[in-house]
Amino acid sequence: MSTSDTKKPITVNGDRLWKSLMELAKIGKTAKDGVCRLALTDLDKQGRDLVTSWAKEAGMSITIDKIGNVFMRRKGKNDALPPIMCGSHIDTQPTGGKFDGNYGVLAGIEVVRTLNDHGIETDAPIEVAFWTNEEGSRFVPVMMGSGVFCGAFTLEHAYEAKDTEGKTVKEELARIGYIGDEEPGKHPVGAYFEAHIEQGPVLEDANKTIGVVRGVLGLRWYDCVVSGMEAHAGPTPMALRKDALQVATRIMQEVPAIANRRPPHGRGTVGFVQIHPNSRNVIPGQVKFSIDLRNIDDENLDAMDAEIKAFIEKTSKESGLPIELKQVSYFKPCQFEKGCVEAVEKATKMFDYSHMDAVSGAGHDAVYVARLAPAGMVFIPCKDGISHNEIEDAKPEHITAGCNVLLHAMVERANRAS
Amino acid sequence: MSTSDTKKPITVNGDRLWKSLMELAKIGKTAKDGVCRLALTDLDKQGRDLVTSWAKEAGMSITIDKIGNVFMRRKGKNDALPPIMCGSHIDTQPTGGKFDGNYGVLAGIEVVRTLNDHGIETDAPIEVAFWTNEEGSRFVPVMMGSGVFCGAFTLEHAYEAKDTEGKTVKEELARIGYIGDEEPGKHPVGAYFEAHIEQGPVLEDANKTIGVVRGVLGLRWYDCVVSGMEAHAGPTPMALRKDALQVATRIMQEVPAIANRRPPHGRGTVGFVQIHPNSRNVIPGQVKFSIDLRNIDDENLDAMDAEIKAFIEKTSKESGLPIELKQVSYFKPCQFEKGCVEAVEKATKMFDYSHMDAVSGAGHDAVYVARLAPAGMVFIPCKDGISHNEIEDAKPEHITAGCNVLLHAMVERANRAS
Repeated sequence: MSTSDTKKPITVNGDRLWKSLMELAKIGKTAKDGVCRLALTDLDKQGRDLVTSWAKEAGMSITIDKIGNVFMRRKGKNDALPPIMCGSHIDTQPTGGKFDGNYGVLAGIEVVRTLNDHGIETDAPIEVAFWTNEEGSRFVPVMMGSGVFCGAFTLEHAYEAKDTEGKTVKEELARIGYIGDEEPGKHPVGAYFEAHIEQGPVLEDANKTIGVVRGVLGLRWYDCVVSGMEAHAGPTPMALRKDALQVATRIMQEVPAIANRRPPHGRGTVGFVQIHPNSRNVIPGQVKFSIDLRNIDDENLDAMDAEIKAFIEKTSKESGLPIELKQVSYFKPCQFEKGCVEAVEKATKMFDYSHMDAVSGAGHDAVYVARLAPAGMVFIPCKDGISHNEIEDAKPEHITAGCNVLLHAMVERANRAS
Repeated sequence: MSTSDTKKPITVNGDRLWKSLMELAKIGKTAKDGVCRLALTDLDKQGRDLVTSWAKEAGMSITIDKIGNVFMRRKGKNDALPPIMCGSHIDTQPTGGKFDGNYGVLAGIEVVRTLNDHGIETDAPIEVAFWTNEEGSRFVPVMMGSGVFCGAFTLEHAYEAKDTEGKTVKEELARIGYIGDEEPGKHPVGAYFEAHIEQGPVLEDANKTIGVVRGVLGLRWYDCVVSGMEAHAGPTPMALRKDALQVATRIMQEVPAIANRRPPHGRGTVGFVQIHPNSRNVIPGQVKFSIDLRNIDDENLDAMDAEIKAFIEKTSKESGLPIELKQVSYFKPCQFEKGCVEAVEKATKMFDYSHMDAVSGAGHDAVYVARLAPAGMVFIPCKDGISHNEIEDAKPEHITAGCNVLLHAMVERANRAS
C-alpha cells in the first residue's frame, strides 16, 4: 500500500505535533516565552531525553554516534536498505524560539506516529535524527554534529572546542551521557529531508504555505580595511583630506549593488563597521568593515567576488588610499538532489498547498548531510521572517502542512526502491 | 618714533622666544616629549607662576579676573588708552604639544622684551593675556576664560563645572591662587591679536610662512539616526530589506559633497558612526552618525544646512526609512575686524614673508574676544598640520616670523591713535 495511491492522502495529527513542540519548548523556557537550551547543557540533556522517550514510545530504536548525533529508527520492510532520514537539531540560541530546529525533529516524530496510526510499513526504514550543536552559540564550529558526520572537520577538532568557561565538547557530551559508540559518518543514509521554518520573509511576503527548497546559498565573508589619515575636521580643507570613511562608504554602497546585479539569489551585506578614532570632529583615519556576499551557485558567487575585488582596486587607485581585502570565510553553495526536491514538490501538490521554489540563506544540517547523501528541505513561513529570537513564531496550519509534505516525501522515497 | 618708519624693521629675539617656549614646556613634560598641563592643576599653577614672573621681570604689572584670566601690562605713553592686547592660553591637552596656546602667550612676552630692548614706548599700553582653560580637557565648556569674559556663558556656570573627580573650577582656581578681583569682561581691550600654530595642513602644503587669518569657521553639528529593520543577511532577499546602513551611507557621501559645492571654506565631516547590532551577518537595523558642517559665513553655512536637510528628506522618502536629524551645536562664524587683519598683513609684508589668507577651522580665544573688541590672528605652519598631539612641532624660523608680525601689528595699532 502506498499513501499516494489513495485519493485522499493521509495526514499527520497537527494538534499532536503542536502539543509536542510546546512540551519540548518548556525545557529552557525564557521569561519572554522563548527558549534557551544551549548545546550539551543539562537542559539539552533533558530535551534529548524527552525526544528519545517519545521515539521509544513510538517503537523506535536509538543509536548515538561519538559526537552525540542521535538516530531514532523505525524498521522498514526491507530493513537492510539505507534509511530514509529526516531531522534537524534541538539546541537553541540563548534567546531562541520554539521552532528553529525543533520543528524538523518533532515533525519527524510525528511522521512516525502517523505511520503507526495508519499501520503503514515502508520498504526502507525511516529514521529521525537530531544533530549536536547546530547553533554554535556555546561551542564553535556551528553545525558541529552534521559537520563531523560529513567530514567537514574532525571529531577531535569538535571534541576540543571549549565554551567560555573552558569546558570542552567531549567533557560535556560525556557528562550528559550522549557520547555514543558509532563512528560519525558511518551511519547509512538513503536520503535526508529537513523541515524547517524559513527564517526569512519570502514565503510570508508571497503568501505561500510551502517553500520547495532548491538549495542553500554559498557565502564569502571578507574583512575590508581602508586606511586614510585622521585629522581635525575644522582646520583640514576638503582637498587635503584622506578621509577613510568617504572611501569606505563607496565600497559599502557597491556591496548591495553587486548583489542586485546577480538576481534573484545574490545577497550583499555590510553588517559590521568600526571607524577610528570615531570622534565627531576628527576625520576618520581608518575604517574596518565586513562584507558578506552570497549566491546559490559558485559561478555567480565567483563573479561577485571578482566584482568586489575589481571595485576595490579601482577605488584604491582613484582615492590614493590603501585598501586591504581579506576573505575570512567561504561556504560552498549547495544544490539539493533533484529527486529529493521533486519528492517535496510532489507531496506539496498532493495537498494543493500554495508553494514556491525557495533557497535557504542560512546554513542547515541538511547542507552537510547533502555531501554524503541525497537531501532536500521543506520550508514553512515564520512570522515576519524572524528567527533566533524569542518572538519567533509560526502558524499551526503551516506547521501541519510542512509535516504532511515531509511525511509523503519520505514515504515516497522509502518505497521508491520497491 | 615708529618702528615702521625705519628702513629695517626691528625684530624679536627668536632664540630667546624659543628658549622660553622650551622652558615652559618642561612643566608637565611627557615621556614622548609633549606636554600635559591641564587647566587649574598644580602644573598649570607652576606654568602661570613662571609666565607671570617673566612678565614682572619685563616690568609688567599683573591683573587677574574672577575666572583666572591673567592680564600682563606694559604701560603706554597715554596709559588711559585701552590696551592693545595679545594672548592665548597655557593649558594643554592631556597629550598636548609645546606650541598650541603657549606660543601666543610667550610671543606676547617676547614682543614686550623686544620693545624694552629697543627702548620703544607705544601710545597705548601693551598687554599680554592668558585665558583660563581654553582646551576644555578637564572642565567644559572649552574656551572657558574668554567665554566668560565675552559673556558667552556666566561666571557661575563656569565655576560649577566639575572634573571627573568632582572638583569644581571655583575650588581649583582658589586652590592654585588664581581667583582675581576683577569682574570678567570689564577689562578694557583696544584690539586683540593672537599668534597661533595653524593646527592644520594648509600653510605647510602651500609652503607659506604666515597665514593672515580672515576669520574662524562657524559650525553646525548634527546627530543623524537612520532606522531600518535588522534581519539575517542570508535569508533576506535584497528587495525585502530595510538596510539602515545603505541609506546612511548615501547621506555620509552627501556631507562632503555639500562642502565641496561651497568652496573654498566649506567643510563636511562624518567622524562618528555607530551601527546596530553591528554583526557581520545581520542587516543593520539602525545607524547613528554625526555630521559636522563648517563655513566662514552664515550665508554659506545656512545654505549647507538647507542642503543636508533637503537631501535627508528626499532620501527618507525614496528609501521609505525614517531618518532623524537633530542639530546639537551651533557656533557662529567669526570674521575678524578689517583693521586688525590689515595690520597683520602689513606687518607680514614689511618682512617679505611668504604668506596667504587663512581661516581657522578650530576655535580660539580670539573668537570670543572678537565679540567685544577688534581682533585678528597670525598663523604659522606646524609640522604635518598636527596639533593636540605630543609630536606637535613648529620650525624656529616660523616661530620667530610670527612673533615679528605680532610685534609690528601691535605697535602699529598701539600708535594709531597718536
